[in-house]
Amino acid sequence: MKNQMDYGLSWLKFLPDQPSMTAKTPLEAAHAELAQMEGLHVDVQLEPALGDGFSIEKRGDGYLLRGGETGVLYGAYRAMMAHAAGQNVPEGEDAPYYALRMLNCWDNAEGDIERGYSGRSLFFEGGRFAYDPARIRQLARMLASVGVNVICINNVNVHNPAHKLIEEEWLPQLAELAAIFRPFGVRLMLSIDYAHPMRHGVATADPLDPEVQRWWMERADIVYRYVPDLAGFLVKADSEHRPGPFTYGRTHADGANMLARALAPHGGTLVWRCFVYNCMQDWRDTATDRPMAAYKHYAYLDGQFEDNVILQIKNGPFDFQVREPVSPLLLAMPKTHLALEFQLAQEYTGHQIDIYAMPPMWKEHFADMPPSCVQAIAAVSNLGRDDNYTGHPFAAVNLFAYGLTAWNPAAEPDEVIRLWCRLTYGLHGAQEDALHALLMGSRRTYEKYTAPLGLCWMVEPHGHYGPSPMGYEYALWGTYHKANRDAVGIDRTESGTGYTAQYPEALRTRYENLETCPDLLKLFFHRLRYDYVMDDGRTLIQRIYDDHFEGLEEAKEMARVLAALDLPEPDRAVAAERMERQLRNAREWCDVTNTFFYRLSGVKDAKGRTIYD
Amino acid sequence: MKNQMDYGLSWLKFLPDQPSMTAKTPLEAAHAELAQMEGLHVDVQLEPALGDGFSIEKRGDGYLLRGGETGVLYGAYRAMMAHAAGQNVPEGEDAPYYALRMLNCWDNAEGDIERGYSGRSLFFEGGRFAYDPARIRQLARMLASVGVNVICINNVNVHNPAHKLIEEEWLPQLAELAAIFRPFGVRLMLSIDYAHPMRHGVATADPLDPEVQRWWMERADIVYRYVPDLAGFLVKADSEHRPGPFTYGRTHADGANMLARALAPHGGTLVWRCFVYNCMQDWRDTATDRPMAAYKHYAYLDGQFEDNVILQIKNGPFDFQVREPVSPLLLAMPKTHLALEFQLAQEYTGHQIDIYAMPPMWKEHFADMPPSCVQAIAAVSNLGRDDNYTGHPFAAVNLFAYGLTAWNPAAEPDEVIRLWCRLTYGLHGAQEDALHALLMGSRRTYEKYTAPLGLCWMVEPHGHYGPSPMGYEYALWGTYHKANRDAVGIDRTESGTGYTAQYPEALRTRYENLETCPDLLKLFFHRLRYDYVMDDGRTLIQRIYDDHFEGLEEAKEMARVLAALDLPEPDRAVAAERMERQLRNAREWCDVTNTFFYRLSGVKDAKGRTIYD
Repeated sequence: MKNQMDYGLSWLKFLPDQPSMTAKTPLEAAHAELAQMEGLHVDVQLEPALGDGFSIEKRGDGYLLRGGETGVLYGAYRAMMAHAAGQNVPEGEDAPYYALRMLNCWDNAEGDIERGYSGRSLFFEGGRFAYDPARIRQLARMLASVGVNVICINNVNVHNPAHKLIEEEWLPQLAELAAIFRPFGVRLMLSIDYAHPMRHGVATADPLDPEVQRWWMERADIVYRYVPDLAGFLVKADSEHRPGPFTYGRTHADGANMLARALAPHGGTLVWRCFVYNCMQDWRDTATDRPMAAYKHYAYLDGQFEDNVILQIKNGPFDFQVREPVSPLLLAMPKTHLALEFQLAQEYTGHQIDIYAMPPMWKEHFADMPPSCVQAIAAVSNLGRDDNYTGHPFAAVNLFAYGLTAWNPAAEPDEVIRLWCRLTYGLHGAQEDALHALLMGSRRTYEKYTAPLGLCWMVEPHGHYGPSPMGYEYALWGTYHKANRDAVGIDRTESGTGYTAQYPEALRTRYENLETCPDLLKLFFHRLRYDYVMDDGRTLIQRIYDDHFEGLEEAKEMARVLAALDLPEPDRAVAAERMERQLRNAREWCDVTNTFFYRLSGVKDAKGRTIYD
Repeated sequence: MKNQMDYGLSWLKFLPDQPSMTAKTPLEAAHAELAQMEGLHVDVQLEPALGDGFSIEKRGDGYLLRGGETGVLYGAYRAMMAHAAGQNVPEGEDAPYYALRMLNCWDNAEGDIERGYSGRSLFFEGGRFAYDPARIRQLARMLASVGVNVICINNVNVHNPAHKLIEEEWLPQLAELAAIFRPFGVRLMLSIDYAHPMRHGVATADPLDPEVQRWWMERADIVYRYVPDLAGFLVKADSEHRPGPFTYGRTHADGANMLARALAPHGGTLVWRCFVYNCMQDWRDTATDRPMAAYKHYAYLDGQFEDNVILQIKNGPFDFQVREPVSPLLLAMPKTHLALEFQLAQEYTGHQIDIYAMPPMWKEHFADMPPSCVQAIAAVSNLGRDDNYTGHPFAAVNLFAYGLTAWNPAAEPDEVIRLWCRLTYGLHGAQEDALHALLMGSRRTYEKYTAPLGLCWMVEPHGHYGPSPMGYEYALWGTYHKANRDAVGIDRTESGTGYTAQYPEALRTRYENLETCPDLLKLFFHRLRYDYVMDDGRTLIQRIYDDHFEGLEEAKEMARVLAALDLPEPDRAVAAERMERQLRNAREWCDVTNTFFYRLSGVKDAKGRTIYD
């Protein structure tokens, strides 16, 4: 097994030693961490009522940190990170905006990770638990340092034998794993198979069947005997061929409530994903519009869920595309507990090969969805067994920023990214400015060279990396753009599929009207002719060309900036190698997209740049 | 293990019993088979000089069959099949046109079959030999009954551990397998890994390196000790990431000759596949035209190969597409031994789900390539462990017809297919006519509903089943159609890529000129505007629409014909289930292709049929 120092520590580099194995509580962990910090003295005082919250005040040469059971550790990290970054230790009170700040790992028991780009699972291999306790402790610490307090360790698509996670055979090991996370205030969550009872002789998974209800009650009792602080269960049901209540003519409220009642006696939460749509759509069917699916399936159920149910809703109505509007479902269920779901794993956003810092995207999201619309937050993990945990060392910025954003949705991307740069690489002045600017602009650059203006889904359909402008066009996924020689896009307004009607008035009006719909989302909501004149006076086709050429040029500029950065090895070499791949990817996207639209439209680039015919 | 009678016997149904295990020679096998035939008396006389040939003459109430060592068995089958079909036993002399009539199995040692659509391997499972001897004997008998005399049992892409086939660990079992085939005149061939010596401490695979040459000499000595009548080795080198002589700056003559010299002392043949092209092509590169690759790589080497080398060349210049012109390489190497390669496995022709009888296609091939251009013939196997061997029971017609065509390239598809129908199902009158017509027209129907007029490569790029009109357009495979709003196709004439120059004068002229190029190949050779007027007066776009609507209607008609056929179970049920899938496939191809071209061209169907927009 590797020495812990062989693993990348990303933003925790300033804290090279792990807290001793003997730390059993966040308070003990906080003491152990603080003991490592030279030049920073912090007295810690436990005030259980504060929970996750804390306060810091100046006290002589040092600080007094008051905090709840976990708050003391969060406060300690906050103070240490500020100190390490050369900033003032923030004084005053602080507490997280969301009580549940969840990370969803899509790890399979076989050791592979669905849409994982950082190597194999940190938890499993070969159909069983297989992990390095020191490394898990390091992971727990990274999560705690940014306030993440729940980790779901297995894929929402529960493949055999991951269902054993709630069976006696595996529960003792699950308890051992939970014990590693516990001192860092991180609780485990488990993805379950909705039809699990049927593996044990129950004839049905009907949520109204008493035997099913009894099975889950007993199962929860058993699981909580081993892991008393388990955060709960996560369920993907009736989605992409997963079983669910629809099989029995029941609603998702029936299904979720049944499971929630089993968890309630133990204080557990039932998280139910709302990623439900017809993944067997006929492309000829114009009556069905996939972005409308989640709202149709759930909005009418508002108020029908148990208190310990949380509906987890992806940020956009499609599936983690580069540019989507806010999912209307997030704005439509005021009487239900909701969780907003982001995806740190760069499934559609560059596979942790291309640089793609997400905080600017999240800020845009919160501009349209007030944070108070949801009561919890989750993100699909971008972690794996790679030495640096995230494949591309810069991808760690997304985990870091996610934690701080989950704590405070108003956090400024600018400041969060700058803090990560400083902590991770200790850069200063022009060097720090350069890395900061590179990360801040990376999403817009990626957007420019990929699918244009909210059109989505021009990615290679299997791997989800690289261009395939027609890859989804005749497929079963409900993701079509219907580009022809004159126009492109789906009319989702009142005159089209009617999707806009799912939004509250303000957003509906904004998106419905071409004049107010932002250019960057125009092709999400409208079907436009290539000669349509955009807000800035350019035609749609010219705007597509311009964006793609600019995106490629910006990627080249990123490569130049990267080459001049004073990064430590192996990060420098890893980032350089991935940048070569990003440049190839950007060029391919640029040329393929431009050629695709040129062949359709017959319109030449106004600036005479090369478009292949 | 199954009883042999549980396996489908296809056209050998009239001979239910296998020859006894004690038959050690084709003569003994012939006697054993003939003994089963009621109402047919044949005396057999061995005349070794006749080799594979035989003669039959009427002698009283029966016949006298004279034949060479294998000829006696071929003659016996010929007589028995005619008799069983109610035809006159053919009198006179007969001998095969090609001495080597080979079947290439793409079976992997793990038990899967590359592009196999009939279940798993008949020979291997789990990285080792695993077969039912009775079933292999049945297979040998089927091959012998149509004259196939060589079977290469492993994939040309030699995946670990298939290289062990020529190593001591596996050779005793290889010898056992050879012994099962031997009484049926079928010799084994093995696909080898060109770089095999490097697994055994040889530092290079350079064909001019004495150590490499010595290694292969010794290896051949060892292999032939176990299987003295091994037909030889089959090699795929420098193709689709396989190793080869190019690595060492040597020609394929260097590589093939080196191996051939190792086989020569044992009478073995070295078969070298000419499927070499750049499979990492940039779609922007218009200077490279994939169909030109094989000719460029080999034609200049004519006359430089050892006598026991055979270059194996696919029928068309691409890769077993529905409609390709003859490969120009087949017409360009008069001083070299060549083998023509067909593909029975329906990789691009319907996966043995869609009905696709190949003899009409082969007849067209021989019309442009005189059989004398090549000295041997090979076909990629369509066999697997399915009960009926070929997935779809009708796919057996292709193996049957391949054998008879390899024996006599002038064989009439019409007669061959009718004979298969009669032997397999014993149908008569209108029923036989119906099945016969269904099979005869099946290729044309499939062609109509898939990629139009020789355009090729509009198939789903991974599985090669179902439409994907842009699936290969920006890929690395060198297979582009460059469809835009005005036109489609690659100009391969003198004014284009110059591919036509690879043909002898007559074909060159025919293909070069739009007036003489057959409509069905026009989009292979020419780039045409959608308003181009075809030979029959229709525009290209209307012809595309018409073909696709007709293809779908023909498929529906096939389904009606099939439903009315009096087939035995399980063939009836299997064929019916596959026909449902064929209909779905045909509809998808029809609609997707029409929509694709409609969106590009903006031209409506002249007959007002539904094209989705």
